Amino acid sequence: MMQGKQSIAFEKAPYIIASASIVGTKEGEGPLGKLFDMVGEEDHFGADNWEDAESGLQKDAVYLALKKANRKPEEIRYLFAGDLLGQSIATSFGIMNYQIPVFGLYGACSTCGEALSLGAVTVASGNATRVLCVTSSHFASAEKEFRFPLEYGNQRPLSASWTVTGSGAFIISSEAEKNARAKITGITTGKIIDYGLKDSMNMGACMAPAAADTIYQNLVDFGRKPEDYDRIITGDLGHVGQLALYDLLLEKNIDIGKQHMDCGIEMFDQESQDTHAGGSGCGCAATVLSAYILKQIEEGTWKRILFVPTGALLSKTSFNEGQTVPGIAHGVVIGGV
Amino acid sequence: MMQGKQSIAFEKAPYIIASASIVGTKEGEGPLGKLFDMVGEEDHFGADNWEDAESGLQKDAVYLALKKANRKPEEIRYLFAGDLLGQSIATSFGIMNYQIPVFGLYGACSTCGEALSLGAVTVASGNATRVLCVTSSHFASAEKEFRFPLEYGNQRPLSASWTVTGSGAFIISSEAEKNARAKITGITTGKIIDYGLKDSMNMGACMAPAAADTIYQNLVDFGRKPEDYDRIITGDLGHVGQLALYDLLLEKNIDIGKQHMDCGIEMFDQESQDTHAGGSGCGCAATVLSAYILKQIEEGTWKRILFVPTGALLSKTSFNEGQTVPGIAHGVVIGGV
Repeated sequence: MMQGKQSIAFEKAPYIIASASIVGTKEGEGPLGKLFDMVGEEDHFGADNWEDAESGLQKDAVYLALKKANRKPEEIRYLFAGDLLGQSIATSFGIMNYQIPVFGLYGACSTCGEALSLGAVTVASGNATRVLCVTSSHFASAEKEFRFPLEYGNQRPLSASWTVTGSGAFIISSEAEKNARAKITGITTGKIIDYGLKDSMNMGACMAPAAADTIYQNLVDFGRKPEDYDRIITGDLGHVGQLALYDLLLEKNIDIGKQHMDCGIEMFDQESQDTHAGGSGCGCAATVLSAYILKQIEEGTWKRILFVPTGALLSKTSFNEGQTVPGIAHGVVIGGV
Repeated sequence: MMQGKQSIAFEKAPYIIASASIVGTKEGEGPLGKLFDMVGEEDHFGADNWEDAESGLQKDAVYLALKKANRKPEEIRYLFAGDLLGQSIATSFGIMNYQIPVFGLYGACSTCGEALSLGAVTVASGNATRVLCVTSSHFASAEKEFRFPLEYGNQRPLSASWTVTGSGAFIISSEAEKNARAKITGITTGKIIDYGLKDSMNMGACMAPAAADTIYQNLVDFGRKPEDYDRIITGDLGHVGQLALYDLLLEKNIDIGKQHMDCGIEMFDQESQDTHAGGSGCGCAATVLSAYILKQIEEGTWKRILFVPTGALLSKTSFNEGQTVPGIAHGVVIGGV
C-alpha cells in the first residue's frame, strides 16, 4: 500500500525467516565478533584473489541462511543481490551455482536496504513465496576497487572508514514458517542526494544528507516521531557522518540522538582497532542486521526499528574526473513477529 | 501471479504509457536511424568526458519520456535504472536531479529487461501508480571500461560487438492514461548461466546459453510455443550469438528461426557500418524497444512479443583474473493495449 510520498506499508507484512552472517578476522575481533555465524581464519578465505574471496563470502552466507531455514535453493524463487565491485562480480561469481533467478542490484553500501525493499515488495504482493537477499563487501577488494593498492600502504585520514569484510543473507517469506526472526512492515526508498562534497575519504559526510532525507521522509510518510522507533539504525555513517546526520535533522527540529545507532560504529572498537570513523561497505549493515539487530528484535528488546543502509555513489573514474560523491539511503521498517 | 518455475503473469497488466530513445551519430546512420526520438550531432553530447556524455543520455531520455506522457518527475513514484559502468555512475549522475526515489540495478546489457520486470511487479501489485525505467550505454565509455583506450586503435575480431551509444526510458503505469503504447503481461527472470567461455570479444556466444535458458523457461512456464509470439527478441546476441541460440534451442526441439529477432543485429548495417557481430549494450535493447518494437505493437503488426535483453557478466578485473564470462537474460512479455 502506497504510503505518503515515497514509502510503502505492507498490508501483509513479509517475514524474515532466517538470516546468516560471515565476516573476516578483524570483524571477528570487534565488539560484535562473537555474534556472527562464521569468522574467517584469514581474509583470503582459501581463494586466489580478493574478488574471489568476496564471492566466497556471498556463497557461504547464502548456504548458511538456506541451512538455517532448512530450505533448498529451488525453494527460493528470486535472489536480490549486489556488492561494491565494478559490474558486481562478487555477486555474479558468488551466487551463480545456486541457479536461482537473480535481480542484480547496485546501491553502493545501501544495497542491503535496496535488496530487502524489493524482496519484501515481491513477496508481500504475492509474486513470490520466498526470496533471498544477499550483499557483501571485502576490505581488500574495496581498497583495490576504490583507493590504493594495499602494498602502497597509504595513510588514511581520521574521517575515513574501514570497509567491512563480510556478507549477510536474508530469506524473506510470505509465511512465518518455523522460526521467523522478524517482519518487514514498510519501506522508504531513497533519492540520490548531492551536497557537492568530493572527499572520498569522508564518506560519512557524503552520505549523511541522504540518510537525513530518508529518515525525515519515513517519519513524515508514516506519521511517526523518532520515539516511535526503538532504534533508527544507519548503515555506515561512522562517527563523522553521525554528527552531520544529527545536525541536518535538528535543522528540521528532529532529534534522533536517543534512538540513533550506526552499524559502522558498532562493528569495530575505534580505539584499539585503528579503524578511524568506523566500518563501512555492503557487508557492514548486512552482517550487523543479521547478527545483532534481528537478535534484539527476536528477544523483544526492540519492538520496531528503522534500518537505513547508506551508500556513497562514486567510482574511481567519477572521482578522478572530479565529480562529487552523492549519497543514497534506503529505509526498511522491521518489527517483531 | 506466480507462473511455473520462474515467471510471473500479471493479473492486472501494467501499461507502458510512454517511452523515449536517444542515440549517437553511428546509430542514427543505421537502418533504424529515422525512428529514434533524438540523434546526437556528436557523441560527446556537449559533455567533457564520455561518462558525463552517457549521464546526459539518461537525463535526456527521461526528460523526453516525461514530456511525452505529460508528467512531472514528482508524478513518478520510483525509478529503476542502470548502466554498464563500474558503480553505475552514468545512472547516478544522469538521473539525480529528477529527485525520484531510485532503485539502482545491474544486469549488464540485460538491465533493461530487469528494470521493466521490477517496475512492472511494483506497479502491477499496486505499490506504485507510475514508475520510470531507464538504461544506457555509450560506445566510448564502454570501451574505456571494458577494453582498450580508443586512442590505442586495437583491432576487433569479427565476433566482437559494437556498444550502442544510446538510452531508452519507459514509463509504466497502472492505468492506460491517454495513449498507452503497450502492456506488460508477464516476466521470466533469468538465472546466471555459465558455459565456461572466456572470450570477451565474443559476448554473443557467452550470452546465448542464458538467452536459450530464459526463452525455454518462458515457453514452459506459460505453456506456449514459439509461434505464440509474433517475435522473440533478444537484446544483443549479434550474428554469432544468434546461431548459438538456434543450436541450443534446437537441442530441446524448439525452433525459433521464424520468430527470432535481435536488437543488436537490427541496429547497424553489418556491411557498411563495420560493426562486425552487431550492436550491444544496455542502450541497444532499450532504444530498439522504444523506437521500433513498441511501434510495431502499437500499430498492431505484432500482437504479442517476448523481449529478452541479454547480459554478459564480466568486469576488466574478472577478465584479467582469468574468470569466465557468464550470461544472464531477463524475459518480458509485451502485448498490445
